[in-house]
Parts: sequence; structure tokens; C-alpha cells
Amino acid sequence: MNIVLLGSGNVAMHFGGALLKAGHRVVQVYSRTEAHAESLAHRLGAEAIHDLTAVYVGADVYVIAVKDDAIAQVVAQLPASLQGIVTHTAGSVDIGILAAHAANYGVLYPLQTFSRTKGVDFSVIPIALEASDEETYHRLARLAGSLSNSIFNCDSKQRLSLHVAVVFACNFTNHFYAVAADILNRHGLDFDLIRPLILETAEKVMHHQPKDVQTGPAVRNDIGTMQKHLKLLEDNPDLKDTYERMSRRIGGDKF
Amino acid sequence: MNIVLLGSGNVAMHFGGALLKAGHRVVQVYSRTEAHAESLAHRLGAEAIHDLTAVYVGADVYVIAVKDDAIAQVVAQLPASLQGIVTHTAGSVDIGILAAHAANYGVLYPLQTFSRTKGVDFSVIPIALEASDEETYHRLARLAGSLSNSIFNCDSKQRLSLHVAVVFACNFTNHFYAVAADILNRHGLDFDLIRPLILETAEKVMHHQPKDVQTGPAVRNDIGTMQKHLKLLEDNPDLKDTYERMSRRIGGDKF
Repeated sequence: MNIVLLGSGNVAMHFGGALLKAGHRVVQVYSRTEAHAESLAHRLGAEAIHDLTAVYVGADVYVIAVKDDAIAQVVAQLPASLQGIVTHTAGSVDIGILAAHAANYGVLYPLQTFSRTKGVDFSVIPIALEASDEETYHRLARLAGSLSNSIFNCDSKQRLSLHVAVVFACNFTNHFYAVAADILNRHGLDFDLIRPLILETAEKVMHHQPKDVQTGPAVRNDIGTMQKHLKLLEDNPDLKDTYERMSRRIGGDKF
Repeated sequence: MNIVLLGSGNVAMHFGGALLKAGHRVVQVYSRTEAHAESLAHRLGAEAIHDLTAVYVGADVYVIAVKDDAIAQVVAQLPASLQGIVTHTAGSVDIGILAAHAANYGVLYPLQTFSRTKGVDFSVIPIALEASDEETYHRLARLAGSLSNSIFNCDSKQRLSLHVAVVFACNFTNHFYAVAADILNRHGLDFDLIRPLILETAEKVMHHQPKDVQTGPAVRNDIGTMQKHLKLLEDNPDLKDTYERMSRRIGGDKF
């Protein structure tokens, strides 16, 4: 298919790479920032545009991969004459945001965390799919199915809950990795020491439910240990409060 | 070496298995609960005892692997006549707790989360080592080195900080996996959907510093998305507060 990519961030970059790999053609890359459009367009063999009036109207699918709160603006500026399917890739944006400016529209939400520093294998990334109508759904399913082995139907409310779950399981856990790295650093210890344990903790829930494999002082209601930990954190009140809150959540009302 | 294992929980079980595998002999397993002592002793080919006056006084090393706040009691009841090295395996207990009741003592703290449901390869688990004196340190280093490829010197304050780091990077992250599973479940979605993403998030910090690979709405200061997430969580005030706190921590004072 011929695709127009609207956006030049991490999601656009990884989407673009996966589209090429699956044999599609990225005809244009749009970014408000000319240099960003040109950089990604160059990598994808596409035309760079930084003005939405220049959008090619004959593409099959338009993939909007900009910051969530910029989607509405981008959609509103698309030429009225385009016939292709207009999609966004956001977890937390209702499909309805596309309704006023496109006849056929949908959502392609890839369940993965993208960063510039690490490549990903798109074929194993589940893609949540939603569309304005059945015919559009089938066309998007064909496109998504060429990128990933795992596509699934998911309405906007479910997609929002999925995104919240991802924020807890991925973004917030990464922040705790950062907290741990900082604590170790302050005590002259290397983050390497706990890397195997971080991986083990993630691997453990690949085949178990997380609540069945919870360990640590909070779930054991080991108050003496928790008090020692809080004392070590006493020069950082916000972190101390975070420790208390998490322990209370894990241990119910025992702590 | 001849080892007496004091305790019958997850740590004792995994330690015992690793000791046998490395060619040591577990001569006794102690637990206050007779059935627990017998069950683990049977698996390790050891004698079961549930009374500390029956402890064999001729062992090389005594490994105390009981709940942290029970260590003092166990140590106090050990026969005064024993000559071997008395050790505990706790992250948050000062080495000093062993001083009053043993001539030679130390700490063997394995940096791993143990659960009954999953086997672990002890040889890749870093072991933090501390000892009452140099000679004892060398003997414990020989023992620990036969179990693991990675042993390191670590005083009690550093070990406490290590344990706190582990609580954040492992126990608290697992709780967020559980939160995510619960959110998905409430919306008719399967935890399987985010399993690849959980693993990817952990794998990403194997070769990067966590703060360099932070993603999500908080680090992007995407207020609109965070507000939608908070709305989805409004029937669970504690979880909503947790979301706000974590986002504030990740985004500094922007949220």
C-alpha cells in the first residue's frame, strides 16, 4: 500500500521501518519541523513535507503518529479531497477524533515502548485495531497483519485501559529501575549488580500471574525490614512516601 | 564443607539445592515447624531438627535463612560450643547481630528473588559477602565462590542500600505488573497482550541506564493523556494517587 506518515518521532520512525520491511511504500513524511521531516523521509525513501496542504491525496492509508494532543490539529488540516483511510496510533485517543474530517478512519495502536536507542522486532508486537466500519477494518487488518503476527480488535475504552496498564507495567517500572540505579550509585555500588534480578523479575511473570509471585518485605509483612529501609530513605521524603505507599498497596492494610 | 541450614523457606530451599549441587553436604535442616524441617531435610538428604539445642556443633558453616526478625532469636539459641562460621543471608540485617554469639561470623546475601514456583540458576546470582575478620572472609569467599560466579565485598550499610534498590526494582515493579493485570482483567483484556512489553522494558535496561530510556506520557509531559488515565482510574482513589505520584516523580514538577 501507499502510506503517508504524519509525524517524525519514535513511533513514526519504527512504523515507517516496519512498513518498508513489509513491502509497502512510504510516499511522504510530514513534520512541522522541516529538518525532522527530511531526516526520516530520507531514511524511508519518501518525500518530506512540513505543510499539511502539501499532503498527497492519493495514498491508501494516512498514519498519524504525532504527540496525542496534536492529533486533532493534524486531522483538521488534512485536505478534504483525500480518499484513503486516516488512522492514528495513540493508546489514549478516542477513534471519534477522526470522524469529522475523514470518511474512512481507524486506529492502529502498537503495544510497545519505542525508543531511538534500541531496535525492535515489529512482527511480535501486538497491534490493537479499531475502524469506522467493517470494510475499513478489513483493509486495516490486512495492513496491520503484514506488519505483525498479532492483531486484535479493541474499542477505544479498552484501548485506553490497555494504555494505562502499559504505563504501570512499563513506564512506572522503568522509573523504579532508575530509582534503584540512583540508590546504588549513592552507595558506591554498580547497577550491574541488580540487572540479572530485574530480568528474572520480568521473566517470572511470563508464565505466572504477577500476584502469585510477589516477594519482598511488604508481602511478608516484615515491618522491621521496612522500617530500616525507610530510615535509609529519610533524606528523600518523596521517595520515602513512595516506599510507604507501595508497601501499603502490596501488604494491604497491614503496614 | 559441612553445612547446617537454619530455616526452611524459599531462601533456605534454594541455598540448600545450590550447596548440594556444588558438592557440599547439608548435615541438618532446622525449622521451628517440624513438618517444614522434615520436608526440606528429606529433599537435601539431611537430618531434620526443630529444636536448636540439637544443632550439630561440628559443622563448618551455619547458614541462617529465616525471616529477618527471627534471626536474633535463632542466633541467641545456638549452642555456645560450636566452632564453625555463623552466617545469615539477609539484605537488611547488620552483621553485628551475630557478634555476641559467635567467634567467626559473616553474611552471604544472594541478590535474587526466590519463589517456590520457579527454579533459578544460582551460579549467575551475585552474592554479597561480609565477614567478622579476614580469615573468615576467605573461607566464606571459597564457599560462596563454589555456588556463584559473582561474589563481591559489601558492608552492612551498602547491603541495606542494595536491598532497598532490589525492593524498588523487583518487588515494587512486580506489584505494578499485578496492577496492570488487574486493569486489563476489568476491561476484558488478557495479560498476555502486555507480556512482550514487560520483557522488552526489562531487557532495555540490560544495556542502558534506566533514566535514558524512560518513555510514557509523564516524561513527555503529555497532560491530556495523563488526565484521561486518571479519569479511567477514578473509581480507585489509591491507584489514582499512585499514578499521580509516579507521574510527578518521572516528570519532575511539570505535572
